[in-house]
Amino acid sequence: MEKLTEYFDTKDDVSLGKLLKEVENQTPISFEILKHSSMRKGKAHIVGITGPPGSGKSTLVSKLCKQLAAKNFDIGVVCIDPTSPFTQGALLGDRIRMQELAKTPNVFIKSLATRGNLGGLAASTADIVQVLDAYEKDIILIETVGVGQVELDVLGVADTVVLVNVPGLGDTLQTLKAGIMEIANLYVINQADRPGANESVKDLNMMVRESGKTDWKPPILKTMATKEEGIEDLIDQIFQHKNHLEISGIWKEKRQIRNIDRLNSMIQSLLSSKVEEYIKKEVVWQRKVQEVREGKADPFTVSHEIVNSLVNK
Amino acid sequence: MEKLTEYFDTKDDVSLGKLLKEVENQTPISFEILKHSSMRKGKAHIVGITGPPGSGKSTLVSKLCKQLAAKNFDIGVVCIDPTSPFTQGALLGDRIRMQELAKTPNVFIKSLATRGNLGGLAASTADIVQVLDAYEKDIILIETVGVGQVELDVLGVADTVVLVNVPGLGDTLQTLKAGIMEIANLYVINQADRPGANESVKDLNMMVRESGKTDWKPPILKTMATKEEGIEDLIDQIFQHKNHLEISGIWKEKRQIRNIDRLNSMIQSLLSSKVEEYIKKEVVWQRKVQEVREGKADPFTVSHEIVNSLVNK
Repeated sequence: MEKLTEYFDTKDDVSLGKLLKEVENQTPISFEILKHSSMRKGKAHIVGITGPPGSGKSTLVSKLCKQLAAKNFDIGVVCIDPTSPFTQGALLGDRIRMQELAKTPNVFIKSLATRGNLGGLAASTADIVQVLDAYEKDIILIETVGVGQVELDVLGVADTVVLVNVPGLGDTLQTLKAGIMEIANLYVINQADRPGANESVKDLNMMVRESGKTDWKPPILKTMATKEEGIEDLIDQIFQHKNHLEISGIWKEKRQIRNIDRLNSMIQSLLSSKVEEYIKKEVVWQRKVQEVREGKADPFTVSHEIVNSLVNK
Repeated sequence: MEKLTEYFDTKDDVSLGKLLKEVENQTPISFEILKHSSMRKGKAHIVGITGPPGSGKSTLVSKLCKQLAAKNFDIGVVCIDPTSPFTQGALLGDRIRMQELAKTPNVFIKSLATRGNLGGLAASTADIVQVLDAYEKDIILIETVGVGQVELDVLGVADTVVLVNVPGLGDTLQTLKAGIMEIANLYVINQADRPGANESVKDLNMMVRESGKTDWKPPILKTMATKEEGIEDLIDQIFQHKNHLEISGIWKEKRQIRNIDRLNSMIQSLLSSKVEEYIKKEVVWQRKVQEVREGKADPFTVSHEIVNSLVNK
């Protein structure tokens, strides 16, 4: 991968796939890719779509992609939901639908493996999104299951968070971490032809009212993803939310915070390497570290000694 | 809190409570407390007890405490399970039982609030455990709900992990993160007089066999905590596991790794402060940071510049 800029200039799916693979696997070149893409960031609006397994979230995502593509938007999908047909364990029907989707010219799908790699998931997602953004996608959809702290962190990357539920999942609604309910900007009741849909809408309405939010009152939408109903309305609301973020300055602010977060995490990782090298180089520190290990020296004193010796400013 | 050493020398519950409060709230003095206690660490065996809400975990913990106290062990309990009567939301009966337990001379209970503070929970638990250890507790029980990554991190502090389940929770067993199943050293089927107990034991047995573990094959125990049955056997197995860890050298190794982890996290936090001060002091870096924020400079280049300027070794 010698001519990195070419990969960014050609903008074909094969090049993009290669770039994302490097970034996902954190190969040596990934640093250059991220550095390069950080200055090429475009205007992508980032939409997180979450909800419990069985809520029809993946079908919704595929219909969203279809209609957005028909409107000539360029779409990137990052899938980190282990129950999604976009990753694994898909039913045959799901797989076929997904393969069709992947063939749509304006849609690029990237699945992120989660197994045993939960720690860095939010960071990886941010990296992938950055490259997709540099590839001038208009909209990036992140599909995840909103149940744990890690998934909450992942959704931190998104501008607009859509929470998908199905009627009669009242209990599930309650067991979902409160955090997810709070960060959602749009609520979707999918499979809205099922009994209990109106009750679910009523419950959510009450919840939104009680939350006392005034700047953006999260709308509650009904969809039937399998019949492709309500998708247009959802797209409309996503863009209304985007508009709200832009007018209020939050859209720009979010990007600025993301840049600073990136700077801080880079500084931290560089400093970690520096310390490691420094300790390796000096026998006196190696001995001190060994003393801490064996409980013969306290980590608080030794950490001060090492840091003060390394940094003399 | 001028005479810190006195607090450690007196070893009464009031002093301990004060020390732990400072540590929990990360007050300025907490640094001194941790530094001090790090050199006084004793021989406490740390037992993590986890399981889904409704498994009778809290009752089991209280009976464990009772019988351990009767055997003249000094016990510390760290409770970070939000559904536990040791924290909040207890039924009246639970509260009374718990108050009785708190009055037992050899038992000290510390509840850790979790609300909105998930990030630092594993670190806080390690801090609390360290002080209890310095107070020469023989056994420290950590009660938590084993469902998320954070709770898994918390259990990383433990030497022995006990996973509590009830019969007929087959589904729950499957929905528990695989990680919890893997780190458990002892399985308990509580409320073993309920139908399905033997099936649960059989399921677990198969799972243990399939895991192919040879060094320590996790035993599967049946208890009826409310009737105080099976507790003695559980205590016996906890000590057998401790014995196994000691003979294999893992017990000592775990403490050494913990010391190094502590050193590393201290170094990292000191370096973060240094960088922050450094940037604040120099106008040139403030300008660079602002450029990164606005997307006019890339975070990768600027982070290198800052770190190389701060650290010249």
